[in-house]
Amino acid sequence: MDTDSAVGQSAKRRARGGAAARRASRGGGGPGLQKPFIKRNIRTYEVLDEEGLTLIENNADTILEEIGVEFRDDSEALELWREAGADIRGERVHFPKRLCRSLLETAPPVFTQFARNPERSVQIGGDATVFAPVYGPPFVRDLEGNRRYATIEDFQNFVKLAYMAPSIHHSGGTVCEPVDIPVNKRHLDMVYSHIRYSDKPFMGSVTAPERAEDSVEMCKILFGESFVDENCVLINLINANSPMVFDETMLGAAKVYARNNQACIISPFILAGAMSPVTVAGTLTQILVEVLAGAAFTQLIRPGAPVVFGTFAASISMQSGAPTFGTPEPSLVSYGAAQLARRSGLPFRTGGSLCGSKVPDAQAAHESAATLNMTLLAGTNFALHSAGWLEGGLVSSYEKFMIDQDQLGMMQKFAAGVDLSENAQALDAIREVGPGSHYLGCAHTQANFETAFYASALTDNNSFEQWQIEGEKRIENRANEACRQWLQSYQPPDLDPGVDDGLNAFIAHKKESMPDAFT
Amino acid sequence: MDTDSAVGQSAKRRARGGAAARRASRGGGGPGLQKPFIKRNIRTYEVLDEEGLTLIENNADTILEEIGVEFRDDSEALELWREAGADIRGERVHFPKRLCRSLLETAPPVFTQFARNPERSVQIGGDATVFAPVYGPPFVRDLEGNRRYATIEDFQNFVKLAYMAPSIHHSGGTVCEPVDIPVNKRHLDMVYSHIRYSDKPFMGSVTAPERAEDSVEMCKILFGESFVDENCVLINLINANSPMVFDETMLGAAKVYARNNQACIISPFILAGAMSPVTVAGTLTQILVEVLAGAAFTQLIRPGAPVVFGTFAASISMQSGAPTFGTPEPSLVSYGAAQLARRSGLPFRTGGSLCGSKVPDAQAAHESAATLNMTLLAGTNFALHSAGWLEGGLVSSYEKFMIDQDQLGMMQKFAAGVDLSENAQALDAIREVGPGSHYLGCAHTQANFETAFYASALTDNNSFEQWQIEGEKRIENRANEACRQWLQSYQPPDLDPGVDDGLNAFIAHKKESMPDAFT
Repeated sequence: MDTDSAVGQSAKRRARGGAAARRASRGGGGPGLQKPFIKRNIRTYEVLDEEGLTLIENNADTILEEIGVEFRDDSEALELWREAGADIRGERVHFPKRLCRSLLETAPPVFTQFARNPERSVQIGGDATVFAPVYGPPFVRDLEGNRRYATIEDFQNFVKLAYMAPSIHHSGGTVCEPVDIPVNKRHLDMVYSHIRYSDKPFMGSVTAPERAEDSVEMCKILFGESFVDENCVLINLINANSPMVFDETMLGAAKVYARNNQACIISPFILAGAMSPVTVAGTLTQILVEVLAGAAFTQLIRPGAPVVFGTFAASISMQSGAPTFGTPEPSLVSYGAAQLARRSGLPFRTGGSLCGSKVPDAQAAHESAATLNMTLLAGTNFALHSAGWLEGGLVSSYEKFMIDQDQLGMMQKFAAGVDLSENAQALDAIREVGPGSHYLGCAHTQANFETAFYASALTDNNSFEQWQIEGEKRIENRANEACRQWLQSYQPPDLDPGVDDGLNAFIAHKKESMPDAFT
Repeated sequence: MDTDSAVGQSAKRRARGGAAARRASRGGGGPGLQKPFIKRNIRTYEVLDEEGLTLIENNADTILEEIGVEFRDDSEALELWREAGADIRGERVHFPKRLCRSLLETAPPVFTQFARNPERSVQIGGDATVFAPVYGPPFVRDLEGNRRYATIEDFQNFVKLAYMAPSIHHSGGTVCEPVDIPVNKRHLDMVYSHIRYSDKPFMGSVTAPERAEDSVEMCKILFGESFVDENCVLINLINANSPMVFDETMLGAAKVYARNNQACIISPFILAGAMSPVTVAGTLTQILVEVLAGAAFTQLIRPGAPVVFGTFAASISMQSGAPTFGTPEPSLVSYGAAQLARRSGLPFRTGGSLCGSKVPDAQAAHESAATLNMTLLAGTNFALHSAGWLEGGLVSSYEKFMIDQDQLGMMQKFAAGVDLSENAQALDAIREVGPGSHYLGCAHTQANFETAFYASALTDNNSFEQWQIEGEKRIENRANEACRQWLQSYQPPDLDPGVDDGLNAFIAHKKESMPDAFT
């Protein structure tokens, strides 16, 4: 055969090892192998040139002034905007040219979100990329294959898995909705779970101002009051109600967090064609409008409060109107938004491992890969939904979580870029081996083999025959097994018993004062 | 729920249409929808800066001179190299500085490969990207789920599918090995199938010089003798026997094609750690050495003959030595090789939809997506293995072919970049809709909906309940159904009966002169 594969097989036969060695490496990850947040040593990929960027920025300025953005709260926001010099008509705020940008001059381009374990603190902005797990699903696909409502046990499981995953740098927020807990008490158990079962940084509640306050209070117990006022220990998802509305719930949470010097991610939630124009350039214009208005608002609340340029971009099906993920247009939107964010001087959030598929099949993987690859190359600083997202975000999937976190490891390796050291140039190896031989046993290979290639614990690259013997498993079967192993071997990080008692007392006190409410 | 998904669902409910409309659009593709080869309107992504590129080029020059490359033929190659000024020791050719590069000055940076249908002719080089199907597998995974040896019927099926796939621009070569035909006669049936069942450009046989001659002869019957001498009608895969050897078979084919002015893709076949150093920089150096030597050789045979800078990059498993695909290191290699190719003035071939998985699962998709996304962003001109590759290239898969060709459509859409026209800026749409409304029915959406988003015929984005009603199908199930529909609806392109008779007479005459040989 004159084929690539024939040559490949022959190399395979030449190589050493076997299934036993491979299996021994499986089930990887775990706290011992944690990787710090990514410092990108690669370029960003850009889809707009200077002319295109200026065009969109000018269009955004026009919309900000002419059409404006609605701030629907108890009129505190409108008052603040009026004082800042905006033109208020009803709930609509019209922004004089450059008002938002001048307000944003106090926002930090880079900041640190502290974790209770200082080694897990993350940089948000600049050349850093931080991967956080899925946010928001009310359902789970569990390890028995059932699709069902999520519980607090699921929530804790996903926190544990994110804690153990080497290339997940953040514990995230609502990794799934624990619907077995009353909705008004849920945030207390969620924040506590992040603190108790992980030592990575996490997110606060945004579903009501008092829940945001509780999130901050719990952080004060954990970190100390003055530390929280001076440092970012919570990063929080403030979705715009696109097009061009900030509603009372989101503004309420944003005000609490900004006032407490905690980070807001101002995220237009865009299904292009529904919440924004059907075109990339039009969508980018609206995203810029919404972020400039929302982010500037945080600086009205507290100048210097950390704020992130967020973008959640998807499209809709032309036939059904259903959201679609991992298609070309949202990638173009997100790449462009990343460029606009850099020019605005704010850290950038987008992407993750998004998909519309109901199961972790090739559709899920293709859509996730398209989103995730863009996430890295765009230079995204904070990537929510990086692991576990299934079915348009309605489902947190254990199996997909495991598959995704493996891909995050690959992204982290890619982000290290090309090593050009003398060792990596390998001239002596090429001299030693020479034409017609192979590199399998040479000194350079021996010296570099362990770190040379990203080693996935989930992919199967064995012979077909070996794969048959092992039960013809698909990757989701291997992910299922690995997930069970991880959860079984999980060990919680230490937590100061005094802090733990303080948190539990706070939660008990809070819960006592609330009736159960499930809606 | 304070979640992205909740907002998504609400948009979905607002949107129009349903499953019936969606199903009506399924099974897409077909000759009526053919897209021309891609003219990239996006930037290339680069992983090396000027310093890194110069370093690798200098290292390659050092290896070319000091270590050299072996040309193992009947000494014709060595004679040609001696006359060109190289230093010959045994079968080893040592190249004085810049000898190869000065020979390559006659090689065209861009050329056209003609198809028998002029609308299907493709540009190779520059801003063009051409997707060709998988090359070489001896096995197929058929539509009944069997893994078995490939036949000529499979071969013809894959030619038909590539003919119908809108974003596959090329019929490829050995889309699978028709092992039911004697190996010495196989090439005749393969070339004939490409001509008969498609009108897209195709590849010639490289397994023996006389089979290359036959491929050229058949093209002369199809295109006319003088046309073939003056134009490229065949592009051919010449693998280096890495490290740094060109063997008699490949040199024999290369000489036939170059002499006849047909294109050679000089492709180091690299499993890093086996055929090249275990590091990216070392691998890039060796690739550059091999391509410069092999490509320059084609110019010794016939100055001006088209030649392509090829790279097939994979790694090996640290545990088993098995080839691995879609991992970070081969992506870095291929991105770097694309840069080296552009500086060498040659068109570039790499990538495709490579994977190691045995089935079209999430592993296959992740590995394929990582490879394919790189293929496009690297600025690859010719992408072999773009659809159908499974199991490290041992298997041509019908289902994976369908899934892959859908992804190629997404790549083609992405490559169009961002439209910045006044219509795309959509300022009037933003004005019309305003805050708090939606874009689903607005005039701009109506006017642009049909072309705004890439519409996959294979992905499912429906509600969970609808997906259940439809049988909980995975994407490979839908791909299977679509593949059956395509093959059933296939209509061959017209072929001049005189040409057809001429080809059949040639094949019959040739076959009569040969004994059956299966090895």
